[in-house]
This record gives sequence, C-alpha cells and structure tokens, in this order.
Amino acid sequence: MIKVGIVGAGGYAGVNLINILLRHPQVEIKWLMSEEAHKGKDICELYPHLTNIFSMKCQTLDDLDKMVGQIDLVFLALPHGIALNYVPAIIAAGKKVVDLGADYRFDNEEVFKKWYNIEHKDKKAFKMAVFGSPELFKADIKKAQLIGNPGCYPTASILGIAPLAKAGLIDLSGVMVDAKSGVSGAGRGVNLKTHYCERNDGIMAYAVTNHRHMGEIEYQVTRISGDQGTRITFVPHLVPMTRGILTTIYAKFAGTGDLAFLRKTYRDFYKDAPFVRIFDEQPCTKNVVNTNYCDISVDLNTNSNTVIVTSAIDNLIKGAAGQAVQNMNLICGFPEDEGLKNIGVYP
Amino acid sequence: MIKVGIVGAGGYAGVNLINILLRHPQVEIKWLMSEEAHKGKDICELYPHLTNIFSMKCQTLDDLDKMVGQIDLVFLALPHGIALNYVPAIIAAGKKVVDLGADYRFDNEEVFKKWYNIEHKDKKAFKMAVFGSPELFKADIKKAQLIGNPGCYPTASILGIAPLAKAGLIDLSGVMVDAKSGVSGAGRGVNLKTHYCERNDGIMAYAVTNHRHMGEIEYQVTRISGDQGTRITFVPHLVPMTRGILTTIYAKFAGTGDLAFLRKTYRDFYKDAPFVRIFDEQPCTKNVVNTNYCDISVDLNTNSNTVIVTSAIDNLIKGAAGQAVQNMNLICGFPEDEGLKNIGVYP
Amino acid sequence: MIKVGIVGAGGYAGVNLINILLRHPQVEIKWLMSEEAHKGKDICELYPHLTNIFSMKCQTLDDLDKMVGQIDLVFLALPHGIALNYVPAIIAAGKKVVDLGADYRFDNEEVFKKWYNIEHKDKKAFKMAVFGSPELFKADIKKAQLIGNPGCYPTASILGIAPLAKAGLIDLSGVMVDAKSGVSGAGRGVNLKTHYCERNDGIMAYAVTNHRHMGEIEYQVTRISGDQGTRITFVPHLVPMTRGILTTIYAKFAGTGDLAFLRKTYRDFYKDAPFVRIFDEQPCTKNVVNTNYCDISVDLNTNSNTVIVTSAIDNLIKGAAGQAVQNMNLICGFPEDEGLKNIGVYP
Amino acid sequence: MIKVGIVGAGGYAGVNLINILLRHPQVEIKWLMSEEAHKGKDICELYPHLTNIFSMKCQTLDDLDKMVGQIDLVFLALPHGIALNYVPAIIAAGKKVVDLGADYRFDNEEVFKKWYNIEHKDKKAFKMAVFGSPELFKADIKKAQLIGNPGCYPTASILGIAPLAKAGLIDLSGVMVDAKSGVSGAGRGVNLKTHYCERNDGIMAYAVTNHRHMGEIEYQVTRISGDQGTRITFVPHLVPMTRGILTTIYAKFAGTGDLAFLRKTYRDFYKDAPFVRIFDEQPCTKNVVNTNYCDISVDLNTNSNTVIVTSAIDNLIKGAAGQAVQNMNLICGFPEDEGLKNIGVYP
Repeated sequence: MIKVGIVGAGGYAGVNLINILLRHPQVEIKWLMSEEAHKGKDICELYPHLTNIFSMKCQTLDDLDKMVGQIDLVFLALPHGIALNYVPAIIAAGKKVVDLGADYRFDNEEVFKKWYNIEHKDKKAFKMAVFGSPELFKADIKKAQLIGNPGCYPTASILGIAPLAKAGLIDLSGVMVDAKSGVSGAGRGVNLKTHYCERNDGIMAYAVTNHRHMGEIEYQVTRISGDQGTRITFVPHLVPMTRGILTTIYAKFAGTGDLAFLRKTYRDFYKDAPFVRIFDEQPCTKNVVNTNYCDISVDLNTNSNTVIVTSAIDNLIKGAAGQAVQNMNLICGFPEDEGLKNIGVYP
Repeated sequence: MIKVGIVGAGGYAGVNLINILLRHPQVEIKWLMSEEAHKGKDICELYPHLTNIFSMKCQTLDDLDKMVGQIDLVFLALPHGIALNYVPAIIAAGKKVVDLGADYRFDNEEVFKKWYNIEHKDKKAFKMAVFGSPELFKADIKKAQLIGNPGCYPTASILGIAPLAKAGLIDLSGVMVDAKSGVSGAGRGVNLKTHYCERNDGIMAYAVTNHRHMGEIEYQVTRISGDQGTRITFVPHLVPMTRGILTTIYAKFAGTGDLAFLRKTYRDFYKDAPFVRIFDEQPCTKNVVNTNYCDISVDLNTNSNTVIVTSAIDNLIKGAAGQAVQNMNLICGFPEDEGLKNIGVYP
Repeated sequence: MIKVGIVGAGGYAGVNLINILLRHPQVEIKWLMSEEAHKGKDICELYPHLTNIFSMKCQTLDDLDKMVGQIDLVFLALPHGIALNYVPAIIAAGKKVVDLGADYRFDNEEVFKKWYNIEHKDKKAFKMAVFGSPELFKADIKKAQLIGNPGCYPTASILGIAPLAKAGLIDLSGVMVDAKSGVSGAGRGVNLKTHYCERNDGIMAYAVTNHRHMGEIEYQVTRISGDQGTRITFVPHLVPMTRGILTTIYAKFAGTGDLAFLRKTYRDFYKDAPFVRIFDEQPCTKNVVNTNYCDISVDLNTNSNTVIVTSAIDNLIKGAAGQAVQNMNLICGFPEDEGLKNIGVYP
Repeated sequence: MIKVGIVGAGGYAGVNLINILLRHPQVEIKWLMSEEAHKGKDICELYPHLTNIFSMKCQTLDDLDKMVGQIDLVFLALPHGIALNYVPAIIAAGKKVVDLGADYRFDNEEVFKKWYNIEHKDKKAFKMAVFGSPELFKADIKKAQLIGNPGCYPTASILGIAPLAKAGLIDLSGVMVDAKSGVSGAGRGVNLKTHYCERNDGIMAYAVTNHRHMGEIEYQVTRISGDQGTRITFVPHLVPMTRGILTTIYAKFAGTGDLAFLRKTYRDFYKDAPFVRIFDEQPCTKNVVNTNYCDISVDLNTNSNTVIVTSAIDNLIKGAAGQAVQNMNLICGFPEDEGLKNIGVYP
C-alpha cells in the first residue's frame, strides 16, 4: 500500500488518474492539487460524476513543500516547463515521480531545447529520468525513481512503429504518421479550438510540420532503431470525438516476407505486453475507450510496397493516466496491470 | 433551359442533386427514379426537408425507355455495374449523361476490370466517356456527351496531388493519401457500418490496401504525371461526422524551392478554377459543407523533406452532386458555377 | 436596394446574417462591427468559409457615430443591455433597426426589468419597438422602424403555442415547454459549457426555473391569448448538436374535437405563413438546418387529454438571422421570403 | 458462486451484461445465446473490445433445453413476446430468471395485452414475476424467482416520479415525462432510424402518444401512488448520443413547502438506495455513463407552481444490464452493488 499525490487533478488526465487509482487496491490518494481557481474546491464540484464515490478538496502547488512528506509517489499532470521547477525537491525528498508532462521525456538537453525552447534547469533529474514506455523499456522503468510518461500521440505512434524499427523492416528515412485525436487531447482549457461548434461534424489537420510530439516520436524511434537517419513526418488531426487516438503509419517495406510474416513479427514483439493487442482487422478507437489497451493492425500494400500500421489508444488512459499507473506499478513492484483491468465501454 | 432526369434520386447524392438543381435557373427536373421500394412515393416522403419546396413521385429504371425522350440530360447515381446497362440506350437516343458511379471513370478496360471485376459490355460509350474533373480536363468535358463523374475520395485526392504531379515536384513512386470521410459517403443504405452507435465518437481505417478509389486515383494521377511508376497508397477512414472528406497527402519533395514556391505553384495551377481555394492554414471540412469548394493547403516538412497537402471537400457536393452539376454546366454551355454559388453553412 | 450595417458580425448570428444577406438581391452590406479583439480583421480571418466570397474588415461600435449615415438599416446582434445604449441615436438618425438581442422585445418596462434586471433608459424607442414575429404581428412589423427580433427559444415556443392560445383550446395556466437546443445557441464565446468534451455525447437541462426566455414566451403568449393567467413552465436543454431547437409543448386540451381538428387548426392558422410547415409526423431539426422554416406537429394524447406540439427551427436562422431578414423584408417592402429561399442541407 | 447464461448476448444490453458480469466475483458466465446469424461465432467477433478478455461461442435458443441445467440463473435480453415462450420451462427447472424484456413487467393481463397486443400464455409465471425496481420493491425482489427488469425509459421516469407520487405531492392526473434517449436504446439492429447520418446533429420526438413504455410508467406509478387517476403523458426523443437517458418531468405541485422541502423529500426517499444520487444542479447524462447510477434533481417553478424533476441514467446499465445484475444480486443474496462499483467515464 502506497500513498500518492496528484498534481493537476482538475484536468482530464488528472481525473482519469483518480478514476483508475480508486480501483487500485494498493494505492491511497493522499492529496490533490490543481490550479489556483480550484483551490479549496472539492473534486466533486469539478467532476460531479465522482459524487458519493470520492471527496477531497484541491490544493495548489504552493502547498507542495509541506505535503510532499505525506506521500510515496506523486503524479504530475502539468503543462510543459512547470514540472521541472518542482521535481528536484520531490526527488531529493526520496519520493518517486511519474511526470505526465514533457519535461522528462528526453535525455538529451539539446533535443529538449529544440522542441520546447526551454533551458532545462534540472539537469540531474533530467538525466536520471526514464521514458515510461513499458512495452519497450520495462527493465529500466522498474529501477527508476522518475518517469517521463510518454505523450499521447507518441504512445500510439511508437508502439505502432517499434516492431518494424527494431527489426529493420522499413525505410526509416521516410516514416509518415498520420494521427487523429479526440478533442480531450487538447485538455479542459477553453478556447475556440475546443468549442463544440467549431469541432463538431468536421475534421482538420493542425501543426502539420512542427508539433512537439514529432520530436518525441523521432527521438524514441531513433533510440529503438539505432538509425540516426530516422525521419518521422507527423501530422495530427482533430476529430469530432471525445476520446481516442488513431495513428495510421506508412513506410516503405525494406524487408522480405509477406503480410503473415509482418503480423507474426508484431505478435512476437508484443507477446509479453499485456496491453497490446494485435488484430487482423483495423482497430476502431471505440474498442479501447476507458482501457489501457493499444490495439494494432499491420498491413502490406504490395502495389506500392508500403507497410501500413494502424494503432488505437484511449488518449487519456494508455496515452496518459493509464500508462502512468502502469509505470507506477512497475516502479513499485505491483502487478503491471493492477488497477488497469477495466473492460472497454461499448458501444 | 434544359430538362433533366435523375436516376438514384432516393440516395444522398440524388437528393443533393435535387437541392442544387432547384436553385439552377436553366434546369427543369423532369423526372426522378429510385429503387423499387420507393416506387410511387413522393420524394418528400423520403426527404421531408423538401416539403413545400418540391414534390415529385419516384419511378424506377423500368420506366427509363419511355421517359428518356422527355429529357436532355440524365444524372445517374447508382452502384457500380448498373449504369453500364442503361447508358448505351441513353447515348443512342442522343441524350447527355453525367454518371456519378464508377462505370465510366476509366478509359482502360483492363484497369476497370481489375478494380471492379466486371467485363465492360458497353465498349463504345466506355471509350467516349470523359473523366469529369473540370479543374483538369475542362476542354474535353465541354465536348463530351458522357461524363464519368469522379468518386468522392478521388476528387479530393487528385485535386490535392495534381499540381505536384504535373510539375514533377514529388517522388511519384511513393504518394500516401490518408483520407477521412464522413459517414454519408457510405450512402443511405443500412448496415452495421453505418449504425449510429458503431460510428459515433470513434474513428477507424478500412479497406486499407484494396479500396477501389485507390485504382481511380492512381490511374488519373498517372495520366496527369505521365509517369507509369506512379504508385498511390490510399487508406480511407470513417470519421464521426455526416459530410466531408479530408485527405492528407504525403510525398517526398523532389524539387527545389521552399514553402512559398509550393504555395505559389498551387495558386498558379488553380488560378482559373472557381471552386478551388488555396489556404496557408490547413482547411477544416466544416468550411466547405454544402458547397462545391475544394479547399487545399500545402506544407513542407524540411526535416524529412516531405510535402504535405491537405484537401477538404463536401463529399456529397464537390465529391458527387455539385461536381456533376459543374460538369453539366460545362457540357451544356452554362456558366461553370451556375447553381453552385451556395455559401457554406457555418458553424 | 438598401445598405445595411451589421453589429456583432463576429458572432454566429452575425455571420449567418452575412450568409443570408449575400444572397439577397436588394441588400448591400456596407460595414461590419464586432468586438474589440476583431478590430481591423477581415471577416474571412474569423470565418474562412467566406474566403473568395466576401471580404470586409471589422470595425467596432466606437465607429458607429460616423458610420450610421452610410446605411439605411442596421442589424444589432449583441448581448442584452448593450443595444439600448446605441439604438436611440440610430433611430434619431432616421435609420431602421432590427435588434436581435433582448432589449426591445418587451413593451412593458417592469417585465423587462424583472427578467433582465436593467432599468431601460431608452424609453422612447422601447415603446415604439415591435416584437418581430411575422407570423403573428405582420401588420405592425410592416409599419415599424425598430424591431425586437424574438429570441431563439421563444420563436419555436410561441409559434408552437400560438394557434392553441389564440383559439382558447388549452388550459393556459399550465403550459410546459421542454426545449432542446444545439450548442450554437450559447454563442461563439468560450467557456466550459461550450467545451466540446463537456457537451459531446450527453444531454442536460439548465436554468430550469429562471431562463430569461421564459419571461419572453409568457409575455407574448399572454398577449396572444389575452389571458392574464397564462403560465409557462420553460425548461431548456443543451443537446450535442451544432444547430437546431426542438420544443415539445404540453398542455391540457380545453376544447372539443379530435386530432384532425387540431391539425386543421394549425394548418388554417399558418395558411399564409411561408415559413411554417405543419406535419403529421414529428419534425426533426435536421430538416430545417440552414432554412428559415419552423416545422410543427400537433398531437393529442387522449388518455391524459393532453395536447402535444413539437416545433423545430434552426436557432441561427429562424431563431435569429433568418427571422431578422424576414423582418427587414417586411419593413422595407421586399417580398417576405427574399434571400430566404434556401433549401435545407440534408443529411 | 453461481453460473449464469445470457440469452440475447449479441445485443447492446447483452454485451453490457457480459462486461459487468466479468467484474462480478460471484458469477461465472456459462453460456451465451444470440440470434441465428451469430451461431458459432465467438463473442469477440461481434465485439472486438472483448478480445483477450473473454472468449465464448454463441449458441441459439434452440439449445436452451439441454443447457438450462448448467446454470443457476438466466438473463433474457429479447424483444417482447419471445421470452414468454421459454420462461415456463426455465422456471419449472427451478432456475432463476431476470428478464430484461417487457413480458413480465405487468401483473395485469389486460394492461399487458393493451400495450403489447399479446395474449399472455404463461399465466403462472406472469403472476409470480416481480417488477425489478430495487429502489421501490426490494423486499419482493429478494424473494422472487422471476424478475421483470424495468424498461430503460421507465427506470428513469419512475425513479424520478416516485418520491412525489408516494407522498402525494403532485397532481397525478397530469404528469408529463419528456424523455431523451441516446440511440443505443434502439438496439444494434440496422434501419434508417439508427443510421448515423439520420441521427447525427439532430433531435426529434417519436411515438408521442403511444410508446409502450408509457403504459409501463403509468402502471407502476399508479401502484406507487395508489391513485387510479394517475395519468402519464410520455414523449420520447432520439438524441444524437450513444448512451444515456434524461427525463424531464413536470407536474403541478399539490403540497406545501418549498424547494428545500422537496430536495429533502428526495434525499430521504432514497437514503438507502446506493445507486440514486440527488443533486441540486441538474444532472448530465455524461456523469452516469457506464455506471448503475440514477442522478436526480428536483426543482420548483413557483410562478407556475410546477415541480420539475430531471433524472439521468445510462440506458444500457441502470436502464438494462446494470439493473438486471442489481436484481440478480438481490435474489441471490449478494451485496446489492457487487459488480456495479464502476466509476463513470469522464469526459
């Protein structure tokens, strides 16, 4: 049994952390922190669906110093550039950290600075952080004190590409990731982009050449492939749905073999991964809603010699809160799927 | 003033033809035909939004022989493989035809057979048909008696690729078209795929290696580029929205120049096209709903040297009924945009 | 040919006014005004769907004094309590006004103050204003200089109740109006209530006992019925859709006769109303999208002796911009349906 | 530990039963039956979200005779008029039954026949059945062998009305229930009414004077109130969302007291009901998705002296599968909320 704190509890990732942790038999939520406007409010005021289930008042990061002693592990769900101001003290206090933001996803300062335009002050913690993709780096995660939880788009993208990248089966100099996200990926903040009437019944691409997650994907796929020539073209889209990310990945097939071989490659690669499911049919994001699954299909267009992978996750679960708990389970020695056995909601 | 008949009036493309033609000052709708189950029903029973605006009973193709004499031009909105049984007689009667189906989009029998698995019986009309993409083949269309109106996906895809293909600015051996369609593209027929609960709030790919529109796109882009090595990888997706297609197109940049050059290339290419709009921002399908516009953006990822094009249409207008009327205007000598000046519905 | 100005052009009602007026053969849009943040921006920056169709920079109300002379009529689409500061000067300048806000919908100061908590400073214009429901007060509208355009909910509600109220066929002391609105009724402003993820795939009631439109409905139905005991219970709901209002109205049947009689009553009442359609089937809001129609059905539950009326409008057209143009047509002597002949968008 | 069978497993209620029962520590699913077309198919083929979680082939009702001996309790999720052919044999075999259909919701043959137009052949079981609304009839349910599980609309409606009906606080001769349902209430069957493009972005009423659930509501509210003059006016609507029912209930206040009194009445009435939550704010259906909760608010319009109640459920959980398991728990002596502690999915 461990005690945890959640920073950023008022956001969509935060409340999904609460949902999951309330089902987790080995975790007690000790405190919640959120933005100034939520100070003193009960989480049920922000999220009435929790009424009669869980009640706790929100505090703010101002209280972190005096409250860090009460917990064993803290989840940080903050915009980039903020966590790095608080993590050193938490680490120094001997506590574990799962950071859902971007501040600890890179172990290369220059790459981080290139994409986030921030000089990373926390050089020590920065170096000790482990990229929390359990399907790829489980051994490192188990020994870590600080996890940089992958971004939502990178989670779906990297899991889709990894078996090909690892096995050298594609031309890594030209990998296209066409990603489609539900609107919850933009958070609970209000702006014209998340206005119902602007999103409903329409689809559009955005940030087509410079989305920060492109850097994260390219950096990690390069680690996996070992090929410095790895080039990811990443285009995100906003889809009129609440949850879910679907990525469709294209790359020239550089191997030999047929579709059956490719499918076997994926099944073998993920044979020990409890949260990856390989399908012959292309997955629908609806099948993973409220679960920690990443559903993947691989196909081969023989006319153009192109491998096509589609991967589907719930951006708030496998793409955020669920994967964070999966990482917590690993660093705390709990079963990897504890608290994450939820069955999907269908339809 | 011409008289027209509409075959397939009960479908979504058919009713949008009616909507447009009722606004067209030079057209009288003389008769409607639909499936057997609609025989004798007024179109307002099928589509109550037309009440008090337009009333006409549906007939069936059985009546074609005796009714073809009443009209100057017929629109055919039928599943593939049916129109080709009726077109020869209409042509022989000296009438004009705009076929919204697939039967007359290829002038190569083998290619048609490869994708549709049908031996084309109507070899004469097949050869005289013109592919009805006015932005690309206007001169031919003006002289045509029989138009093969482009498919919805091909319309958005081909208009997106054409400026690059024509100018030799991309590596044509690896063009990826990631296409996202609203559900109306699947027609008004009922099946699990179009069930509200199966489509709402989720996205999926389908037919990832063998969608028939891939053949149409590759065939036409090959015509435009003149490069027999043209290879299109086409993956369609079903998006939870009613109308709209967005394509995101990826290809290696094979030219020199920068983004400004690419944008100028597009603006120049479409400078005389009243229904193509080039944007710096990526278009949203919402901006073209109920219009004949194709909105296009072009971008350049310099890291991976990849050109990224997004194009947005209303699949039922520019992707079907609107383009069909545009073709009718051209073959009848009317102004190209007659009946098509509708302003989009926003939000 | 008249010249008009639009204040509040950047909102959803404003841009729909533009859409309609661009189709109107007798109107020239002379200027647009919007909020401070839009100053100097072209309307196409705010609404890209207008690109290549209409271009005009936005000004602000600060410019009204010097620009009022350029126009014959001004449309005001502003939050309540603002128009009344500007209308006296416009009226004094001899210009016509169609106010889409609430400031001129009541001719009783106390009732206005009760619902809006504002002391109406503009007593003269207040008294000369005509409630712009053309189906009910056409003669007055034709002579008016200043129109208080009905609210969106009141439009659907009053048109649904009027035939019964006028004929004394229901118990007016207990009329229930259960109203369902698309999210565009809340405007383009951003807040948690209009956030996509909070509205998508869910429905809720709000302001169940004190929505201001309840006052407007009760006031107008009282005028129509002449019965001071008229009591309207009004409950609005937010529905996951962009456009449309459906009201379901319940009242005890106080007359004699059957369903056929009720239907005839409605058809007779609206026999000269070009924008009201009476159906035996219950209308769907989809059938009126982008039109000025109000579709109505009336039914009789003989077990409980209750009349049930459903009425459907597009909240942005018949509930705002369309009805405003209908009023403009009447006060300017144009055909009532000029610019409003748009056919609905289906599906 | 008990063994159960599910008839109608291929439908939306059926698959939600599976989801819930897989979380239930005291239940083993022994077999599944579905329609002929599903015979021999694994449930994962019908519902891929269950992949790697649960695998079982579907059988049909033809196999019931030989399989009824394997189970202790059977859930029937069938269209009305079918269960009554099979229940007598199951009862005779000493098994428990929770029937999610309408065949055992009435203990009055005439009322059943009036609404369903079926002569009930199974008179014995018909009489022994208990209406499975645990908040109202828990004592009876605990002793029952056969449960008629309430309909989805009746569940939300009756729970909303019951406190008022029981306490005589409203004029029961005029209760209006305006109900709004997600499309999953219409089942997984395909027809134009459930076509995505016909439902998306629009709302409509249907069956406004004769929906069968009106009979069920009136019958049960009459039981609760003891007032034979009880008259329910029920109007259902189809809302563009997948799950959820919201009812808005209107009745003349016939008591004394204020809003605080009414709220206290509700809180007292449901003080022992683990799945009813009383709110001051009006509930949104999103807050109960995938839970067994019924969220209720009560309000008082003092101008019209009308009580307004809104109640929200997940139609597939509290309105079907969840309530069925709640009933199973009661008749089997398990904790009432076993398997039903799921936290809602938000957003």
